[in-house]
Amino acid sequence: MSKIDKVVLAYSGGLDTSVIVRWLQDTYDCEVVTFTADIGQGEEVEPARAKAEALGVKEIYIDDLREEYVRDFVFPMFRANAIYEGEYLLGTSIARPLIAKRLIEIANETGADAISHGATGKGNDQVRFELGAYALKPGIQVIAPWREWDLNSREKLMNYCEQHKIPVDFSSGKKKSPYSMDANLLHISYEGGILEDPWAEAEEDMWRWSVSPETAPEEPTYISIAFEQGDPVAIDGERMSPAVLLETLNKLGGANGIGRLDIVENRYVGMKSRGCYETPGGTILLKAHRAIESITLDREVAHMKDSLMPRYAELIYNGYWWSPERRMLQAAIDESQQVVNGEVRLKLYKGSVSAVGRRSEDSLFDERIATFEDDAGAYDQKDAEGFIKLNALRLRIAAGKGRKLI
Amino acid sequence: MSKIDKVVLAYSGGLDTSVIVRWLQDTYDCEVVTFTADIGQGEEVEPARAKAEALGVKEIYIDDLREEYVRDFVFPMFRANAIYEGEYLLGTSIARPLIAKRLIEIANETGADAISHGATGKGNDQVRFELGAYALKPGIQVIAPWREWDLNSREKLMNYCEQHKIPVDFSSGKKKSPYSMDANLLHISYEGGILEDPWAEAEEDMWRWSVSPETAPEEPTYISIAFEQGDPVAIDGERMSPAVLLETLNKLGGANGIGRLDIVENRYVGMKSRGCYETPGGTILLKAHRAIESITLDREVAHMKDSLMPRYAELIYNGYWWSPERRMLQAAIDESQQVVNGEVRLKLYKGSVSAVGRRSEDSLFDERIATFEDDAGAYDQKDAEGFIKLNALRLRIAAGKGRKLI
Amino acid sequence: MSKIDKVVLAYSGGLDTSVIVRWLQDTYDCEVVTFTADIGQGEEVEPARAKAEALGVKEIYIDDLREEYVRDFVFPMFRANAIYEGEYLLGTSIARPLIAKRLIEIANETGADAISHGATGKGNDQVRFELGAYALKPGIQVIAPWREWDLNSREKLMNYCEQHKIPVDFSSGKKKSPYSMDANLLHISYEGGILEDPWAEAEEDMWRWSVSPETAPEEPTYISIAFEQGDPVAIDGERMSPAVLLETLNKLGGANGIGRLDIVENRYVGMKSRGCYETPGGTILLKAHRAIESITLDREVAHMKDSLMPRYAELIYNGYWWSPERRMLQAAIDESQQVVNGEVRLKLYKGSVSAVGRRSEDSLFDERIATFEDDAGAYDQKDAEGFIKLNALRLRIAAGKGRKLI
Amino acid sequence: MSKIDKVVLAYSGGLDTSVIVRWLQDTYDCEVVTFTADIGQGEEVEPARAKAEALGVKEIYIDDLREEYVRDFVFPMFRANAIYEGEYLLGTSIARPLIAKRLIEIANETGADAISHGATGKGNDQVRFELGAYALKPGIQVIAPWREWDLNSREKLMNYCEQHKIPVDFSSGKKKSPYSMDANLLHISYEGGILEDPWAEAEEDMWRWSVSPETAPEEPTYISIAFEQGDPVAIDGERMSPAVLLETLNKLGGANGIGRLDIVENRYVGMKSRGCYETPGGTILLKAHRAIESITLDREVAHMKDSLMPRYAELIYNGYWWSPERRMLQAAIDESQQVVNGEVRLKLYKGSVSAVGRRSEDSLFDERIATFEDDAGAYDQKDAEGFIKLNALRLRIAAGKGRKLI
Repeated sequence: MSKIDKVVLAYSGGLDTSVIVRWLQDTYDCEVVTFTADIGQGEEVEPARAKAEALGVKEIYIDDLREEYVRDFVFPMFRANAIYEGEYLLGTSIARPLIAKRLIEIANETGADAISHGATGKGNDQVRFELGAYALKPGIQVIAPWREWDLNSREKLMNYCEQHKIPVDFSSGKKKSPYSMDANLLHISYEGGILEDPWAEAEEDMWRWSVSPETAPEEPTYISIAFEQGDPVAIDGERMSPAVLLETLNKLGGANGIGRLDIVENRYVGMKSRGCYETPGGTILLKAHRAIESITLDREVAHMKDSLMPRYAELIYNGYWWSPERRMLQAAIDESQQVVNGEVRLKLYKGSVSAVGRRSEDSLFDERIATFEDDAGAYDQKDAEGFIKLNALRLRIAAGKGRKLI
Repeated sequence: MSKIDKVVLAYSGGLDTSVIVRWLQDTYDCEVVTFTADIGQGEEVEPARAKAEALGVKEIYIDDLREEYVRDFVFPMFRANAIYEGEYLLGTSIARPLIAKRLIEIANETGADAISHGATGKGNDQVRFELGAYALKPGIQVIAPWREWDLNSREKLMNYCEQHKIPVDFSSGKKKSPYSMDANLLHISYEGGILEDPWAEAEEDMWRWSVSPETAPEEPTYISIAFEQGDPVAIDGERMSPAVLLETLNKLGGANGIGRLDIVENRYVGMKSRGCYETPGGTILLKAHRAIESITLDREVAHMKDSLMPRYAELIYNGYWWSPERRMLQAAIDESQQVVNGEVRLKLYKGSVSAVGRRSEDSLFDERIATFEDDAGAYDQKDAEGFIKLNALRLRIAAGKGRKLI
Repeated sequence: MSKIDKVVLAYSGGLDTSVIVRWLQDTYDCEVVTFTADIGQGEEVEPARAKAEALGVKEIYIDDLREEYVRDFVFPMFRANAIYEGEYLLGTSIARPLIAKRLIEIANETGADAISHGATGKGNDQVRFELGAYALKPGIQVIAPWREWDLNSREKLMNYCEQHKIPVDFSSGKKKSPYSMDANLLHISYEGGILEDPWAEAEEDMWRWSVSPETAPEEPTYISIAFEQGDPVAIDGERMSPAVLLETLNKLGGANGIGRLDIVENRYVGMKSRGCYETPGGTILLKAHRAIESITLDREVAHMKDSLMPRYAELIYNGYWWSPERRMLQAAIDESQQVVNGEVRLKLYKGSVSAVGRRSEDSLFDERIATFEDDAGAYDQKDAEGFIKLNALRLRIAAGKGRKLI
Repeated sequence: MSKIDKVVLAYSGGLDTSVIVRWLQDTYDCEVVTFTADIGQGEEVEPARAKAEALGVKEIYIDDLREEYVRDFVFPMFRANAIYEGEYLLGTSIARPLIAKRLIEIANETGADAISHGATGKGNDQVRFELGAYALKPGIQVIAPWREWDLNSREKLMNYCEQHKIPVDFSSGKKKSPYSMDANLLHISYEGGILEDPWAEAEEDMWRWSVSPETAPEEPTYISIAFEQGDPVAIDGERMSPAVLLETLNKLGGANGIGRLDIVENRYVGMKSRGCYETPGGTILLKAHRAIESITLDREVAHMKDSLMPRYAELIYNGYWWSPERRMLQAAIDESQQVVNGEVRLKLYKGSVSAVGRRSEDSLFDERIATFEDDAGAYDQKDAEGFIKLNALRLRIAAGKGRKLI
């Protein structure tokens, strides 16, 4: 590895990444550029400025990326109805490629030769950050302190802070959570602590974004979401920007106890891991998107999307947003969404979301043909006989030649 | 079409299939054998005997197929986590191949040369019955009265009854439902009526198997389900036969408002159709099965199952249970389930089911490796660097040669 | 079916479709518009005019569609490396959607309310013509004489000709082939006759487009093909239009005995069928296209293409070129082809085509990294250890917990 | 890494692995067990004994694994028609899991705590060996000298030999090939040298197993291959063991110039690499297997196999033979092969192999239905109308509602 002069660090302003600033300065004798982004994690980002300055950082980037995040990452992913392993809405995975992109942009602007992040060596996030970075700037160097240093216990970190005079009262006001958490506009996640026993139920006070279904309102909430080309554009008739729309859905979902998930998932690095997630707005959005697709998409297009979806979700989970294969799949998905326009009515109630109505100028639902009543000849039932006979032909020939299916 | 001497009819005992008995006798001058099955539709099947006798039927089959249905059809399908179009649990689809099989077995026993059924020419069920019948007995003839006769309105049917002295008070006690319904141990379905407008919300009094989430108990219900080789075998430690187990889950789910679904789906015959479904036990079972798989299945096996699932579900929806391609997929799925043993703890509450715990002797969850705490060397974080670097190699080479991803 | 006033017929000028002209006039009392296309079948199309006139046809369309055919149908399909059932290059299948499109365009221009064709009721072509027609003009009526009339033997046809004074000396000069043949710029096909026994070898004198490998030149022929965005644009440095290029490849391939194929394939209508094909240019083109992709496509893109290909080929074989799902797949395939530029060198010899060289400005082949010699640090072999260790992690955990693979 | 006492080395008897014996002894101060297998590479394995003894090895394993190799690895893979990236028959990939299995078996027998091999850090073989080893014995340690030592040039290796008195005249008789080669009963491969330029044609004298098509016999050779449950069992009516059968096909193919391949492939470790291969018997076998499947497999089973094949081939290429996902796919493939019985007649001529006839007691080819002649009512052409109309229904509805496909 060649000499590093300047490194761009994904900096949260918290204790761990503050330690990393100092450790990078000391270990690599290099300049550190900090980058702090608001992607809807629900914490002020501006305080990171003073903290970075106190650590001697000269180039400080603080960006509000919320609209870009939802518009260019969350919404394109939802066009695919992406779910990882049947359950997970990819709330962490989809935020990483945006961070990777900004790290590289800032490296280009500041002439840095490396990037760094605070993700551990066991998780998926290191992979997502670094694959993105390498794909966008192949010569970049990556420093992953958690894979390099020996500060792998709370005590050692604290000693390091004391030794280097890093103020540790960063989060003094809050009770330290027993969970490892991560949040952005799409979700908040919890890992570690008692969750490491997959038989143990998560404690009620772990959840932060949603009320429990038990304490949610006794009356259902009805909303409608309008879609244009596969993306949501309005709630109850009011047009909103992507980030505002998702934030609104988060509030509606959270208030109705919607979007909690407790799973064991398979990490790309090879181990199983227990995770709990709150994705209130995303859970509503997925239901709504499937409902609007149900009346506007052709059957075979819908089925093809369903068959491609697991691979698409896996790509994003594994960190391959910035890859030609994701772009190839996205081209197919986006092609399908031109007609996904219309409105869905939803019922939110104590943890559940149901689609109760859907309508569209682009609907393929044909009342005349679907009806149980007399259809005035719109559909000739006799066609069904030939349809069945020829679909059965290969089976009839096989059975006629003695093939057994039982 | 050659002369038909004897036809086996799937006979519910209701008005429509009673008309069919007479119509077959008259139109084809043939003997009719009736076959009535209890597959958990929730109605007595024995009364069908007297009705058939009254219509002059001499060979009457009345079978309790509930255990066979759940053991040999429902459970194998649930091993695949089968969902059609992202939502539908295939409750009607999976009952049809069993009926087709019995129709053919009875045709073989009674020397019948044809089968008949009461499904319309617009739906999927005609396809499922007939594909199954042709696949199992290629020379069988199929009579689908709804595609042939002109009794295509309620009035004409009634006139026919009067003319042929068919008693029409069959369902006199009950108020005639505005919906077309179908039920078996896995679910009850609703179509037609106001549902033909996909924007209209289903009325609360349509639902029959579940209380509304609003009126479900205020306290959650916790249960555990034990699995062996991918199939559920016990609830709360009590072993049950397949049908009893599913019935028990239906009660638990129904009491907690679980398993309602309102969708627009794509029929195999080519049109979109609105359907509402209650699948209380199946909804719980799917959640539980995914949860037990989450700790026992290898990642790549799980992902392969997910990628095959849409095709498997489509096969069943379209009526190809009795086909070599379903058997081929089933072989792969069943191979994966040998290790799917263990127990899942679930919370049922006002329409939602959540997995809150899972454990297994066959668990692949490795606490030592997954932990956020010190893992005593079980996992070498430095391995991640090489893992990422080589996974990124093709992307780095491409970027180095000028390929753009943005 | 409502009254038909005018029908557009896909008219070859041969005996069968000439009979159809008269039969349509008589049976439907309607005007017939003939449409004859040159798609490279190797026969003059202009003589069809006089024949149609002699039959009383007033609106006669004779089009040279060769360039459109290759540019808009053959080449897009080859971008996908489409092969049906591992062997068949889809030479008939891909010509049908163009014919369907022109039939509908002419129906629109002439105000016809129906189309007609000379395909039989057992084959795939009827499906391809009619699916295309319905997809492009849903209200169109379709007349398929071979499914309707009773002229289903040579004798009856001849009687009909005599009776209606249709001259039967159309093909008097040529010896009547025992095979059913079909040709266009991409291939010529043979069915029927002794081929109906799949154990019987095709006779040497059946083949028309290629010399036998045995009589091909003793010296190999070397050529190079240049590609731009996945499509071939030049041979040996000479730029050619699509049709001219394919024609040139056909001559080169035919002279070297390349592109013969003898298979049993599965028709969409359900039976197996023996077919022999000569696709000289297409066989060369497929080899060349794969070769240029091999150095320009990303690995995962190439693998995704390979996994989508069977479905894409099936779509085209079954007649769904004009469908939203084909467009969706095409969007993905076309997205991948932007970088497929460069040149391939090929050796043609006695029935074989081999790629012997490939080069491109967009090559991802990196000599520095691929080399067996010292790579001066371009690739760090130590990365492989971590790569393997983490890829093995799930397997190691499983084995550690007692899972057996043998 | 803990202390290593004994290591099992995959030992060819050649110079490189002889150096490794000594290097392991010196570097790890451990005992070395050598394992040399005859998998049909075409060289005597017995001489390896004396060489190992001369290096002080006490436990020497020399196994003839040819039958096991073909029966348990090559044939199961051919049931899938596996081809990597459209061209490569996986001749190297499929030999590795057998070696890995024997290394682990010998480690278990001898109480060794590590295995070692002579594969470089850039290739796929290290991955295949090591994934297999970890999957079968998770606690095993792996020593990959080419990733560890600094003997990365010919000169350094020679110095090491001189210094350690390792005789270098091992291959003195033969002219040193400029290519890196690898052979087993399925194929021989060539890499390196001038092949590192993908535009350069391979020299004629590189090829070792086949005559050039130009010098192959002027007369075609006809053979027949009989299959049972998807595996070949006899040639020209003579039953043979798996290895003898493949060897016989290799001779037949080689004599007719069949099975040469020149490609650029994508390695699992991330780079593209040029490879040339001779797979004479395998090329014939693949053609024959597809031909026997063409008359015995159901259409949808065949298509499902085709759609799964790329993933299956990728698994084997990447080294995941010993994995639960490969077993899952194999279960599906093997299920499909019960009916793949019968005989194929093939023509071999100057580099090409063609199937010219196929027959089977399990044939699904139905002459009565397939015929162009009168079929006496076996197939009702009128069924095709309903078949097409309903398959077109979704397209007609969409077009009727204004959807455009052009």
